[in-house]
Amino acid sequence: MMRERVYLDWNATTPLRPEARSAMAAAFDVTGNPSSVHSEGRAARKLIEDARSAIACAVGADQRNVVFTSGGTEANALALTPGLRRGRAEPVQHLIVSAIEHPSVLAGGRFAAGAIKTAPVLPSGVIDLDALAALLADNRPVLVSVLLANNETGAIQPVREVAELVHEAGGVLHVDAVQALSKIPIDIKAIGADVLTISAHKIGGPKGVGAMIVGDTLSGLEALIRGGGQEQGRRAGTENVPGITGFGAAVRAAIASMEAVAARMRELQARLEKGLRSHPGTVIFSDSVPRLPNTTLMSARGLKAETTVIGFDLAGIAVSSGSACSSGKVQPSHVLQAMNADPALLQGAIRLSLGWDTTEADIDRCLEAWIKLSSVLGKASATGLEQF
Amino acid sequence: MMRERVYLDWNATTPLRPEARSAMAAAFDVTGNPSSVHSEGRAARKLIEDARSAIACAVGADQRNVVFTSGGTEANALALTPGLRRGRAEPVQHLIVSAIEHPSVLAGGRFAAGAIKTAPVLPSGVIDLDALAALLADNRPVLVSVLLANNETGAIQPVREVAELVHEAGGVLHVDAVQALSKIPIDIKAIGADVLTISAHKIGGPKGVGAMIVGDTLSGLEALIRGGGQEQGRRAGTENVPGITGFGAAVRAAIASMEAVAARMRELQARLEKGLRSHPGTVIFSDSVPRLPNTTLMSARGLKAETTVIGFDLAGIAVSSGSACSSGKVQPSHVLQAMNADPALLQGAIRLSLGWDTTEADIDRCLEAWIKLSSVLGKASATGLEQF
Repeated sequence: MMRERVYLDWNATTPLRPEARSAMAAAFDVTGNPSSVHSEGRAARKLIEDARSAIACAVGADQRNVVFTSGGTEANALALTPGLRRGRAEPVQHLIVSAIEHPSVLAGGRFAAGAIKTAPVLPSGVIDLDALAALLADNRPVLVSVLLANNETGAIQPVREVAELVHEAGGVLHVDAVQALSKIPIDIKAIGADVLTISAHKIGGPKGVGAMIVGDTLSGLEALIRGGGQEQGRRAGTENVPGITGFGAAVRAAIASMEAVAARMRELQARLEKGLRSHPGTVIFSDSVPRLPNTTLMSARGLKAETTVIGFDLAGIAVSSGSACSSGKVQPSHVLQAMNADPALLQGAIRLSLGWDTTEADIDRCLEAWIKLSSVLGKASATGLEQF
Repeated sequence: MMRERVYLDWNATTPLRPEARSAMAAAFDVTGNPSSVHSEGRAARKLIEDARSAIACAVGADQRNVVFTSGGTEANALALTPGLRRGRAEPVQHLIVSAIEHPSVLAGGRFAAGAIKTAPVLPSGVIDLDALAALLADNRPVLVSVLLANNETGAIQPVREVAELVHEAGGVLHVDAVQALSKIPIDIKAIGADVLTISAHKIGGPKGVGAMIVGDTLSGLEALIRGGGQEQGRRAGTENVPGITGFGAAVRAAIASMEAVAARMRELQARLEKGLRSHPGTVIFSDSVPRLPNTTLMSARGLKAETTVIGFDLAGIAVSSGSACSSGKVQPSHVLQAMNADPALLQGAIRLSLGWDTTEADIDRCLEAWIKLSSVLGKASATGLEQF
């Protein structure tokens, strides 16, 4: 039986996992405030600590180093704090971000605009290590923020190499692992991150929950939301008990099935990309470097992303134009611009992102729609029928 | 049939309303990211805008003026922004908070510590208007933050009078209505608030959601969490779709039943307080001023709050010692200290807060436990058995 809708926009947000749903339904019955000392309060506290343990295990961290937030954006805003320091190193005063970071990192957290530098990327979509090294020489002590995998292209970044450079320079490394979590293995110590940020809704947990995880030697963190002792004083406010519980359940389920799911997604990704390339002139970005198994960013001359997304939508298929968070705005992707992509391709970039639930039939239906759309859109471009 | 547990800690957090629970369960099926343009995204957007409409109606505001946050604490942190201005008045540079504000307001948001003054309260637990007027003369242009009803005593503050003073001084008024919402009517224009903050989990919505509502003439707001265009640029990050949906459903249910529920709570409150006073020396704070219909803060000489809470808990009754958020810490209430309460009563303050679901049987069971506890605790105090 064919599905009514094919959802190929898992990088924007994933459907809620059944494990998260049932954990949250159970949490709805836990009445107490986790700060309360009566048994209702202690039951709520236990839910949070169980989830904290799941998150810690998922990234190889200590449980006490996990700070829950309202999402990846808040976690990034919290992580980008002047004054962070690694061991006995100097507290950071500068911030270097890669040019392909999420907007919540590009915003720079609590660093003044003048203290922020941008590290360029290569046309392949990975950070330019030589350019980073040069920036590190001139901006110390520094916090460097690099994502583990880009949300638009899926390009996996050489984070271990970045960590070596940053630590040699006495700096602190923040890794935004929001898009990578549950798609590739993450170990905070192995990749050399001093602070790592993740989000629940990208892995099948609920929207509105995220976490910041710090390394053992990091200090100097200052809360962004203050006025309560929650999260060891690192994030005030009554905890989102059901959301955190759902996050814990989602991460447990995602990590347990990661290897099998990633292998299946990799096959489906290959099938998808082969089909997309049947349209002459299709370009798949970052296809020369390791990518997430589920992310394909493509374009073709003459394509207009907005009309293509609507065309797919009418054909029953949800895809995204450029990055999800900015897809409401009509402006070219900052990621593709940083990659120095052909300007003729910028307006047509479409992201197809797969999930654990994606099937071969979904891919084939997407490709059928693509064949029709790409021919119509080609004609539309030729005849000026851009309102397709 | 007697309930297994009696929950009298509704000011710390309320049980989830069935309306919120079913709205959230439905929202779990909405896959999209509200920023996505495909139909899944638009369905998520619609849920948020429906909730926004419910919140706006509940406080007499325009829908476009509602900003969703991760809770009351974040909403307060966001509201306390230097540079806010009302109409053509000067942008605020000073902050005056009442001495009985929630810790998230006492933290002062983004104001420097040196720019913050504290307005005293009278022994009755309401703000000292004369002292406020004097502070207003010396600290301009100013943002004043006063809660509508105190979370510990339930004392309702003379917010209209405060608004007149503040506006005469060219200032901006922030009203923390977290504890008052759904217990007394709130109209942002009628009370003269320029910015109002509320929280979902205090009215039977989910934990982890709140809102800031601004008045028509307020400008100068700066986002606290940046890097995304959500909430009209006033709060970045993928929206907590199920949480916001639950908030909307809870507020609709709470407002629709407010009058009847408040009347019933008022009767139960009277029954409770009559019974509590049967113990000689019982003091009920702020009993000379208008209070919320559900909040009773009491104490008696010789009482120790921590042991009393545990005693109630063992008897199957959840109550709170002092304010919920600080009940994990053993320190006297800043509210009672500001009210200049008898030091002999500070260590014994117990808050009993009722909800829509509280019954006469709950109150009677609480009073039975109180009679036993107060006699045992009295003896314990006399014989040194403080470890009761």
